[in-house]
Amino acid sequence: MPPEPTPTQSPAPPTTRGLHLIGELYGAEGLSDVDHVAASLEAAAKACGATILDTRLHPFDEHGGVTGVVLLAESHITIHTWPEHAYAAVDVFLCGDCDPADSLPILKEAFRPDRMTTQTIERG
Amino acid sequence: MPPEPTPTQSPAPPTTRGLHLIGELYGAEGLSDVDHVAASLEAAAKACGATILDTRLHPFDEHGGVTGVVLLAESHITIHTWPEHAYAAVDVFLCGDCDPADSLPILKEAFRPDRMTTQTIERG
Repeated sequence: MPPEPTPTQSPAPPTTRGLHLIGELYGAEGLSDVDHVAASLEAAAKACGATILDTRLHPFDEHGGVTGVVLLAESHITIHTWPEHAYAAVDVFLCGDCDPADSLPILKEAFRPDRMTTQTIERG
Repeated sequence: MPPEPTPTQSPAPPTTRGLHLIGELYGAEGLSDVDHVAASLEAAAKACGATILDTRLHPFDEHGGVTGVVLLAESHITIHTWPEHAYAAVDVFLCGDCDPADSLPILKEAFRPDRMTTQTIERG
């Protein structure tokens, strides 16, 4: 009898299919607080049921903007903020069964945009 | 006479305007070599004239896929690869004067896709 295949421990999703939500936040708040941004992106990932691999945030000296990423087993969440324009660009790209729309309540609560536009692109 | 404003040393671009290239690579190669992927993304960033802040790659045990990001002063480049499907999802999001299309020759040379589709979205 051949040996049983070794079960994999990898969290990588088996399918390349994914949904990529592209969000533009205008009139937003809390865009220069690195800890707040990091915690909010991680909360957004968890709200989608995603598995966090790494969180990297980089603050800019000028205007207090932040650029960063939460790398996920299911792809990524990124943010780039311009507090001086009260604007942030957010991407929530999730492969597998996760739905990036589940991140929207968290993002709206965290950054309180006056206006938010989104589009969702199919990937894979 | 009022003091001169202090010149800023921040590399953050002054505008929120950006271009976000979304690429799908099919029939691609070199998708499980973390060092190759990292070097290729960094070369793509440099080809666009972007400023690299941080490079983070995460290999998956199963199938040798890679997920990762190059954080830029001008936003980001991300990649997620499925070597078992010869597929990679690549994003090149650049604010300011950088043009993400300048990354395409590097990406094609690095991963030699049989077919590559791209769309470019205006951000900001």
